[in-house]
Amino acid sequence: MPASAIKEWFDGIDTFLLDCDGVIWRASDAVPGAAESIEYLRSKGKHVRFVSNNSTKTRGDYVSKLKDMLGIDATEEEVVSSGYTAAQYCVRHGITKKVYCMGMPGLVKELNAAGLEVLGPGDHTKAFSFGKMTPGDLDPEVQAVVAGFDGHASFYKIAMAASYLRYGKGVKFVATNRDATFPDTHMLVPGGGVVVGAIETGSGRAPDAVVGKPSQDMLEILASAGGLVRERTCMVGDRLDTDIVFGARGGLSSRLLVLTGINNEADALKYPAGDPHRPTHVIASFGDLKRVLEPVIG
Amino acid sequence: MPASAIKEWFDGIDTFLLDCDGVIWRASDAVPGAAESIEYLRSKGKHVRFVSNNSTKTRGDYVSKLKDMLGIDATEEEVVSSGYTAAQYCVRHGITKKVYCMGMPGLVKELNAAGLEVLGPGDHTKAFSFGKMTPGDLDPEVQAVVAGFDGHASFYKIAMAASYLRYGKGVKFVATNRDATFPDTHMLVPGGGVVVGAIETGSGRAPDAVVGKPSQDMLEILASAGGLVRERTCMVGDRLDTDIVFGARGGLSSRLLVLTGINNEADALKYPAGDPHRPTHVIASFGDLKRVLEPVIG
Repeated sequence: MPASAIKEWFDGIDTFLLDCDGVIWRASDAVPGAAESIEYLRSKGKHVRFVSNNSTKTRGDYVSKLKDMLGIDATEEEVVSSGYTAAQYCVRHGITKKVYCMGMPGLVKELNAAGLEVLGPGDHTKAFSFGKMTPGDLDPEVQAVVAGFDGHASFYKIAMAASYLRYGKGVKFVATNRDATFPDTHMLVPGGGVVVGAIETGSGRAPDAVVGKPSQDMLEILASAGGLVRERTCMVGDRLDTDIVFGARGGLSSRLLVLTGINNEADALKYPAGDPHRPTHVIASFGDLKRVLEPVIG
Repeated sequence: MPASAIKEWFDGIDTFLLDCDGVIWRASDAVPGAAESIEYLRSKGKHVRFVSNNSTKTRGDYVSKLKDMLGIDATEEEVVSSGYTAAQYCVRHGITKKVYCMGMPGLVKELNAAGLEVLGPGDHTKAFSFGKMTPGDLDPEVQAVVAGFDGHASFYKIAMAASYLRYGKGVKFVATNRDATFPDTHMLVPGGGVVVGAIETGSGRAPDAVVGKPSQDMLEILASAGGLVRERTCMVGDRLDTDIVFGARGGLSSRLLVLTGINNEADALKYPAGDPHRPTHVIASFGDLKRVLEPVIG
């Protein structure tokens, strides 16, 4: 890419939306140079937002991790995660009492912070036994099943979640994300999509909403805060089917694929120009951004 | 159906293949009249075989349950289950050392009986923790993941099974069945298909074999024992997508839907004549068979 094109591209962007896992960190390791790239963008007057399908952390947890791992200051308002978004979705859809949740403590906290009573945590200690479950076990006040990555997923919990959806009255199914895998430190492990899919199969019901990327719920939360001009916004991500499609569907002018996570350049080139999976730009690592930009931009 | 047609149909059948859950029993209750119908069929010289997608029991367990619940004598050779069939599939495909299993004790016993060492039982007590799993946790001697209904399914076990398939060398994926639900005593609960689907999503690999109905593995086991004439065989089942399709694919001349389980007559009529989901005959209950036949046949 010639210097003039880089400058034109950079001048055309006000806001960078950064996916987190696979972009600025991988599990518990920072991507080298990511902090410097964020600081560089901010020093050039760009807004930076953190947009993550990972539902296991609260927005506050993200602020802490950004500080601890990257030394980056951020506010909760700069972070939007699928857990926070699921809680907001509930509130906006009249779900204000109780939910049954399969998820990590971060998701539970976001639901609690939105005023919801959360059933499910602790249920992994309960064994499933044939003939023991009855519809009478279900709390009639539960208005939704909220599901995402759950390291404590168990057959009993899956059966409870599926039963609320099958036998409960008007119970909604809110999923944080459908990511099939999660890039853990040493290997890919099953992602939130595995939990969501298990409930879906067991209940015979598709989610009423999957709030994570590529759904537009997170973009709407960011847009409703004001100041986001879609045609001057760049989505930065490592997954074609979540991040890049998210940017395309949202009408963001720029979708930058980084190669430090799930997909590589060959994956991207399988899609024809114009396909929502096709990034507008590719860079080896977000951590390289400052190094690429500085000689051109200053 | 006029008496002459009933007689012609009955005279044309030598062997009745009976699904179990939803046909002769529902969870821990016998279907009323089922024992009498089985005895009646045998008294008329018909062979009866028990053909179940339920992987949670050994063939010996089926023999015991038939005796205890219905007072019916049967031999292990008259029973074929998806657990037994999965074990036979392994042996026939050179899987003779170790497998990682998600399943109930009955499946583990069938695998052990086939000479296989089984990893996985007990793993539900292990918690998943971020950053703790490594490919080094995997036993290099594991040749297959065998999965079915698992009341002790846990995120850790799903992650282990998926990791064997993703990182193990030449590891096969053998599923007992894909039944989305299981008719437990008081309600539908998630079935083996939920466990299989979770591993599939997490590993990115479809099963190399799903040995349960509608796959033909169980029919091949029955046929290899000799004496089964497909055009003189009737499959009796409560599920269109497993039992009835199994019979159609296997070239069985008669596929009898009973309404004591999953599907009803309206479900069947959604499929046009000739579709493999469409039963050739429908009866309210297998327990009614003797009552319907006796006035005509004697």
